[in-house]
Amino acid sequence: MQRKIEVCVTPALLGLYDIKDSIVVVIDILRATSSIVYGIDNGANAIIPVANVEDCLNYTDNGYLLAAERNGSVVDGYDFGNSPFSYTKERVGGKTVVLTTTNGTKALHMARSRAKQVVVGSFLNLQSLSNWLKTQDNDVLLLCAGWKDHFNLEDTLFAGAVVNAIRAGFTEFDDSCVAAEDLYLLAKNNLRAYISKSSHSHRLAALNIEEDVQFCLQLNICDAIPVLIGDNLVRLQLDQIPESSLTEHVN
Amino acid sequence: MQRKIEVCVTPALLGLYDIKDSIVVVIDILRATSSIVYGIDNGANAIIPVANVEDCLNYTDNGYLLAAERNGSVVDGYDFGNSPFSYTKERVGGKTVVLTTTNGTKALHMARSRAKQVVVGSFLNLQSLSNWLKTQDNDVLLLCAGWKDHFNLEDTLFAGAVVNAIRAGFTEFDDSCVAAEDLYLLAKNNLRAYISKSSHSHRLAALNIEEDVQFCLQLNICDAIPVLIGDNLVRLQLDQIPESSLTEHVN
Repeated sequence: MQRKIEVCVTPALLGLYDIKDSIVVVIDILRATSSIVYGIDNGANAIIPVANVEDCLNYTDNGYLLAAERNGSVVDGYDFGNSPFSYTKERVGGKTVVLTTTNGTKALHMARSRAKQVVVGSFLNLQSLSNWLKTQDNDVLLLCAGWKDHFNLEDTLFAGAVVNAIRAGFTEFDDSCVAAEDLYLLAKNNLRAYISKSSHSHRLAALNIEEDVQFCLQLNICDAIPVLIGDNLVRLQLDQIPESSLTEHVN
Repeated sequence: MQRKIEVCVTPALLGLYDIKDSIVVVIDILRATSSIVYGIDNGANAIIPVANVEDCLNYTDNGYLLAAERNGSVVDGYDFGNSPFSYTKERVGGKTVVLTTTNGTKALHMARSRAKQVVVGSFLNLQSLSNWLKTQDNDVLLLCAGWKDHFNLEDTLFAGAVVNAIRAGFTEFDDSCVAAEDLYLLAKNNLRAYISKSSHSHRLAALNIEEDVQFCLQLNICDAIPVLIGDNLVRLQLDQIPESSLTEHVN
């Protein structure tokens, strides 16, 4: 079977890709998609990504948890931002979280209207995501949320990790796949050290989120694959996949 | 002195960068900027990049050489395309070439109206370009022409080679600088083999331009730095730089 995998290094380039029959994996490692994966894995009913802080306010009276982050900090008056430590079983289990973040939500919304299916990736669910992607028939676009439409290292490294995990099932790769995979192979033995080369490592340090960064770089602590259904990110139901198939695809 | 260096991986992202006080280096390794560097080094009076094949026709009656390439091939009826082997002393010495190419011309035109200064880079003039950039005071944007607005490997590798050569004089680097430099360091011992991983290596093979590719990957066979003055790419005059300064900055 002919299958193509591509890496879109920033949402600003999404228009270049024909994704109507593709699975799009949205990637915002620090920290939106890591927190989304962790929250869904911890039993959140749904996470609703919204575009603006103002849009969150439509949900205030309905028992939703409100999460809003801008430029890395929790917005005043909201329940929490996008630190993964807020997305524990105790806080989000059985709840619905309404979330707006700088880059991740934007990428989710851009992909939603154009792709066949939109799922969420992070190092936390790398293996389950990769195993599932292998069992599908569609082309895959790995969409890096980036930083304000710029290329960023951590999202590209994760895209490279996915390429590396699933490449055997694909026949066509774009140049950004090659670059992302090679950067991942260079960085994988110490992701944290590699990301410290990033231009925004100073910004991250100023936000005092080192524990978050360390958390988001953990591999395979979650099984859940969040999938966008309408406005809601919910847990992808894998029941239809036989157990044997899952085992077979484990790296 | 605070100096910033950034890599713009495709012209589609140029709008993200504030370049009004920057030197922009336009990069289209296969093959436009390699041929431009070689042609200017071989004594062409000027090379005029134009946007469309039709624009070339405005120059037919004036003794210009006309070069037009689309999708990698010479356009019917033109003197030549963008194979560097056409830009020899014998063919272009003392002449003016009017050139339109798929990606390189577009990047040159996009940069022209917004940057402080636009110069042209290729592996052929890597060292002279890097030495000159070190002597300047402005920020530097390395602008990859890419392939139809997509990220491509060879332009990014060259951007990484420049970052690697001049980084000591700079204090700020964006994430694409880090990625480009690391990819270059990974590839530099065999650039040709690395580029064979490219998605368009099949396209290049189909064009039967292997000799061109090999030619364009040669290091430092040219001294000329083409600079855009009005509509014309001409040889940057380095007379004002003392000989000692040039020597001092040689790697």
